[in-house]
Amino acid sequence: MASDEITIRPVELDDRDKGLFDVLAQLTNAPLLSAERFSELVFGQRVKGEHVTIVAEKEGRIIATGAVAIEQKMIRAGRPCGHIEDIVVDEASRGLQLGKKIIEELVKIAREKSCYKVILDCAENNVSFYEKCGFKIKGVQMALYYDS
Amino acid sequence: MASDEITIRPVELDDRDKGLFDVLAQLTNAPLLSAERFSELVFGQRVKGEHVTIVAEKEGRIIATGAVAIEQKMIRAGRPCGHIEDIVVDEASRGLQLGKKIIEELVKIAREKSCYKVILDCAENNVSFYEKCGFKIKGVQMALYYDS
Repeated sequence: MASDEITIRPVELDDRDKGLFDVLAQLTNAPLLSAERFSELVFGQRVKGEHVTIVAEKEGRIIATGAVAIEQKMIRAGRPCGHIEDIVVDEASRGLQLGKKIIEELVKIAREKSCYKVILDCAENNVSFYEKCGFKIKGVQMALYYDS
Repeated sequence: MASDEITIRPVELDDRDKGLFDVLAQLTNAPLLSAERFSELVFGQRVKGEHVTIVAEKEGRIIATGAVAIEQKMIRAGRPCGHIEDIVVDEASRGLQLGKKIIEELVKIAREKSCYKVILDCAENNVSFYEKCGFKIKGVQMALYYDS
């Protein structure tokens, strides 16, 4: 591929050293995981097939990422639900529609896994972005944080 | 146990024949799964440990249920997030604080699995109930339903 080309693909082991955690840290608290813990998560995704993290790579660096967790359900004839999580685009790469491409890829993955729907939670000011991606407001997200 | 006692416990294979799907159908589209598909889901939960459905049983019938899906994350030092899903109390058993007990049990399970937080999505009119369970409004839930 041309060196300025952007590739979107499932996470791989060496993404830890390509700046994945520098990108995640722009979203929230995301300390670099040990190589052992990271490989456990990456291989866990491949083996279980119920969680897919994707990345966008450009010139050997990760510039965006997102994930979809596949939740098995008993309702809806046992079809699963996709949960889109942890979407972030590196600040230097914003304005390239990368966020939209990441979402489209995750929506496609959830569909391929037979999900009947895909859901996500976002801040009020991101609603219009997700509406452009085909999502509609559905409800209220609530959270309980553990102290430790 | 006394016959009028209510037991809250993880789902078991014979819950399919104890009315679990009659309760789920009060929440949404939830046709009875085949015994084979149901056992696949129940054993999948036990083997993978990343999804726990609990039920409340009284006199041999299921009167409430709820679930928590454990999502492995790369952020937050690799600690998981719990997603509470599909909470429903049989109409004949409402007013017994069963919903609150189910939520408390799911919050406890997610904590035991080292989650740093537990989240859920609800309709506007259920916000005050979840606030009483310790949750706070965090954001907006958005959804995309697949056509088929």
